[in-house]
Amino acid sequence: MKISDVIQSADWKTEKHAPVIEAPEKVKAGESFAVELSVGKEIAHPNTTEHHIRWIKLYFKSDNSKFVFEVAASEFNVHGESTDGANKGPVYAEPTTKAVIKLNGSGTLLATSYCNIHGLWESSQTITVE
Amino acid sequence: MKISDVIQSADWKTEKHAPVIEAPEKVKAGESFAVELSVGKEIAHPNTTEHHIRWIKLYFKSDNSKFVFEVAASEFNVHGESTDGANKGPVYAEPTTKAVIKLNGSGTLLATSYCNIHGLWESSQTITVE
Amino acid sequence: MKISDVIQSADWKTEKHAPVIEAPEKVKAGESFAVELSVGKEIAHPNTTEHHIRWIKLYFKSDNSKFVFEVAASEFNVHGESTDGANKGPVYAEPTTKAVIKLNGSGTLLATSYCNIHGLWESSQTITVE
Amino acid sequence: MKISDVIQSADWKTEKHAPVIEAPEKVKAGESFAVELSVGKEIAHPNTTEHHIRWIKLYFKSDNSKFVFEVAASEFNVHGESTDGANKGPVYAEPTTKAVIKLNGSGTLLATSYCNIHGLWESSQTITVE
Ligand SMILES: [Fe+3]
Ligand SMILES: [Fe+3]
Ligand SMILES: [Fe+3]
Ligand SMILES: [Fe+3]
Repeated sequence: MKISDVIQSADWKTEKHAPVIEAPEKVKAGESFAVELSVGKEIAHPNTTEHHIRWIKLYFKSDNSKFVFEVAASEFNVHGESTDGANKGPVYAEPTTKAVIKLNGSGTLLATSYCNIHGLWESSQTITVE
Repeated sequence: MKISDVIQSADWKTEKHAPVIEAPEKVKAGESFAVELSVGKEIAHPNTTEHHIRWIKLYFKSDNSKFVFEVAASEFNVHGESTDGANKGPVYAEPTTKAVIKLNGSGTLLATSYCNIHGLWESSQTITVE
Repeated sequence: MKISDVIQSADWKTEKHAPVIEAPEKVKAGESFAVELSVGKEIAHPNTTEHHIRWIKLYFKSDNSKFVFEVAASEFNVHGESTDGANKGPVYAEPTTKAVIKLNGSGTLLATSYCNIHGLWESSQTITVE
Repeated sequence: MKISDVIQSADWKTEKHAPVIEAPEKVKAGESFAVELSVGKEIAHPNTTEHHIRWIKLYFKSDNSKFVFEVAASEFNVHGESTDGANKGPVYAEPTTKAVIKLNGSGTLLATSYCNIHGLWESSQTITVE
């Protein structure tokens, strides 16, 4: 079995688990820009102690290199748990974050996300460096 | 020795390592809001293969509970490393991120950050839930 | 408020949350050795979807440097959650791990751990490099 | 592009990047056991500030469920960096760790690992629960 057998993908407009990548289509070499990353932008995902999004990771595959780089990773670590029981706690983290990056060449942004009961999901977007 | 002996704090306007927390002073119970988190907002921190900010974490201590919750954690995982050597790679992650959270009671936001050669840093901000 | 106000410490033989560090007291410079890290070695900690140990991190403070290094971090990411509900899933991660490290000078190993409802805990052990 | 296009696999006896999974072939339901995880067991991987293994993650795909679970993740966070420059620091983390887990059904253990310049790698092993 390969990890690719269990990483799911889908259009995030119709599937609440697919990570959403919002980034420019073109950027300037060496200039910082934001990549907005989220899950459930169109259809909200549950956020409970028992069922929630745990993290989103961002990778970059340069057109000029063979290997992928892990760029950033954001964890969403609290979902209402408490000493009074599940879903009674004072704080919840939502699956929305951003990375700020700079690139020296064109390539593809890849995002993966993880639901604690519905597993791994992925999306990608190409990006051109001028 | 305690970990508190090695967590440093300082005004982020004069010390480039101290994490910056930008959040509302007052929020509504159960309503999502963004917490902008960064290092080097006023004085940029180096971003090289040999010296960079690795992560920022966000914690919340409710006024009504004894224990702290880890809310979110963002890692900055690439800093120009490559098969051609240090600082020749195609992508850099900057130490800027955000968390989106909701609260059910007042308390304190605490942030920690880590420079790979200058260690652990922290900041905090109180937040009121109306 | 400081993060040190909310990091708890205790003897792990009587407090099930305190991280246990098992490492040699003396090691040779540049030779790899194992550091066993766990929570609940004497008194088991619950391992349920609602209440569990999330991670253990290991830091090193050299006697010869001002700053602490983050050495290793192990996450325990599954605790019986499933699409059939809490505590019905097929897999649980226990809070036991190890790091393998090498040192070039004497100092202190520091461990922190996190219970999802009982917060942050720490322990330390000095280590001599011959 | 899919993340599967950039996750590499190989026999760890001949390729130093492939993660090594050492686990029993058969275990008893609900009984804890160790999974030894490493990179470079046969052919050592470099461990320098510029080139090193960053993490190993362990996943479990139950034969009875559609989705994969993230079980454990171990990070190797220090590789000789220091204020005196690269490869002059007092501590190095080696890419060897363990997870302790319990299962309630048969399935497949999957491991992924990440070299900071040679990207993502994976391995798997089936495991039977009696
Ligand atoms: Fe889900
Ligand atoms: Fe620094
Ligand atoms: Fe606890
Ligand atoms: Fe490598």
